[in-house]
Amino acid sequence: MKGSLNDLRIVVLAGGVGAARFLEGLVQVVRPEQITAIVNTGDDAEFYGLYVSPDLDTVMYTLAGLVNPETGWGLRDDTMQCQEQLARYGEDVWFRLGDRDLATHLRRSILRQSGMPLSEITRRLCESLGVGVRLLPMSDDPVRTVLNTPAGTLPFQEYFVLRGQRDEVRSVHYRGIAEARPAPGVLEAMRTADLIIVAPSNPFVSVAPILAVKGIQDALQKKQACAVAISPIIGGAAVKGPAAEMLRSLGMEVSAYGVANRYRDLVKTFIIDQVDAELAHRIERLDLQVIVTQTLMTGQPEKRALAQCAVESVLLAR
Amino acid sequence: MKGSLNDLRIVVLAGGVGAARFLEGLVQVVRPEQITAIVNTGDDAEFYGLYVSPDLDTVMYTLAGLVNPETGWGLRDDTMQCQEQLARYGEDVWFRLGDRDLATHLRRSILRQSGMPLSEITRRLCESLGVGVRLLPMSDDPVRTVLNTPAGTLPFQEYFVLRGQRDEVRSVHYRGIAEARPAPGVLEAMRTADLIIVAPSNPFVSVAPILAVKGIQDALQKKQACAVAISPIIGGAAVKGPAAEMLRSLGMEVSAYGVANRYRDLVKTFIIDQVDAELAHRIERLDLQVIVTQTLMTGQPEKRALAQCAVESVLLAR
Repeated sequence: MKGSLNDLRIVVLAGGVGAARFLEGLVQVVRPEQITAIVNTGDDAEFYGLYVSPDLDTVMYTLAGLVNPETGWGLRDDTMQCQEQLARYGEDVWFRLGDRDLATHLRRSILRQSGMPLSEITRRLCESLGVGVRLLPMSDDPVRTVLNTPAGTLPFQEYFVLRGQRDEVRSVHYRGIAEARPAPGVLEAMRTADLIIVAPSNPFVSVAPILAVKGIQDALQKKQACAVAISPIIGGAAVKGPAAEMLRSLGMEVSAYGVANRYRDLVKTFIIDQVDAELAHRIERLDLQVIVTQTLMTGQPEKRALAQCAVESVLLAR
Repeated sequence: MKGSLNDLRIVVLAGGVGAARFLEGLVQVVRPEQITAIVNTGDDAEFYGLYVSPDLDTVMYTLAGLVNPETGWGLRDDTMQCQEQLARYGEDVWFRLGDRDLATHLRRSILRQSGMPLSEITRRLCESLGVGVRLLPMSDDPVRTVLNTPAGTLPFQEYFVLRGQRDEVRSVHYRGIAEARPAPGVLEAMRTADLIIVAPSNPFVSVAPILAVKGIQDALQKKQACAVAISPIIGGAAVKGPAAEMLRSLGMEVSAYGVANRYRDLVKTFIIDQVDAELAHRIERLDLQVIVTQTLMTGQPEKRALAQCAVESVLLAR
């Protein structure tokens, strides 16, 4: 075991807003350079011919201190002039992309056109914005999360943003997952990590696609002893996003227990919110160590405290 | 000859700002539906992977009442958020594209990707913006104006915008011109026109590329009797753009006479400004009918008066 927090190498499996907020806390506990975030790309999509990577962008903008604090995604003080004009030309504008935000997608698309892999593009964008945490897409290969619903098979953003998660989800699939290789550095970072944290992200559409990439779930299982997950469900509801609706429509228990049950063979420790304290015993029977704390990240102190708790949970257990 | 202004079919060969202002006047004299503008596309360029057509945009924005009145190009009340962020990512931003303006280039690029020709794209954009004048690109095929200078061969926008027209121009070429066919409707509009007006645009980089497209110069010559050109040079200087510098560095006389000399076999009438009145006799010796009037389009009344003058010059001559 390492002697101090300053030597720890930490990997975070990350979705969008919840993971970004957690990482904001984590960089107050350890140096950004100690952290590798492996980020879901199953929600990636094309709009206006531009490659948009919502989770990578949310994490990057948040860690750069540029995120829109009202929404948790997009850029602070952004404007919507381009999309307003696009609407006038008859383009769909249901997926809101601000003017500054569009620059990220333009730049990413230009570099992709030149043949650069997403991982290298992400490294460059982060460097431009002064992000010290290493962000890795889960894969440089295309994976697309699609949801089977009574209304047909919907790409994630269409289900979530366009249709307002109103459809019952019968199953979730990750197109391209069989051919997707982990991005360079992903497995190495997991193998050498002192601590792996599954961020409070949607288990189905944020964490599951990451785990479904060849080799990643195995790599997590090998590190189970130093792996911890944080419940994205608090008091039977998701803080943000469709996790609760998806648990429900997939016939699972809409609770921290339902999430813990999915991670039971992958992590050692499971962190739940105080309001869910009564679930602790049931979760412990899944062979998980349970920590009860405040998981709602209302401000910087709460983010920091949750990160501290996650880091110490593993250190103390060793 | 047609009985009234309301029946005239008018074709305007058009570059950017000068032509756009002239067309603003013309739509006060005749109905927009009577006008077909054949617009230079030799200045078209790609930025950030997007297809930009500066002259088509300038004419379209102007006729839609949306043009930035300060610059004569771009959109009124536009912002620069996207390019500011692109600069942060290391992209070149010397060619200013506002956030609303980018929507035009995004939309055009999407439609091009789908295989739609530029003429049909232009028709749709104009329809969205309520432009009643028919705008036709000179060609749906790519033509690129390049300038040979001591600094090398420069695309027009690089010479003009990036390098501030500081290079001596040794010659002008139109790449792709041999393969370029007139866009659908161009030759037909010229053939059936009652009046063809060469707008006060740069003779080398706005009008010449149009004339160089197969069949267009012939079509103009056939209509010489009802063709009129307006000098873009007033008192030895161009109102806007590099026409004067180009005349000079190509070894030609920097005056309305120099321009008239280029059009001598193509039009019947040449309109010059009052300040150039003393050139009238020399120009008449080129076998051109000369009209001296105010050609500087300082406001709407001046634009209207110039358009009226151009229209009547031909009507009266018949």
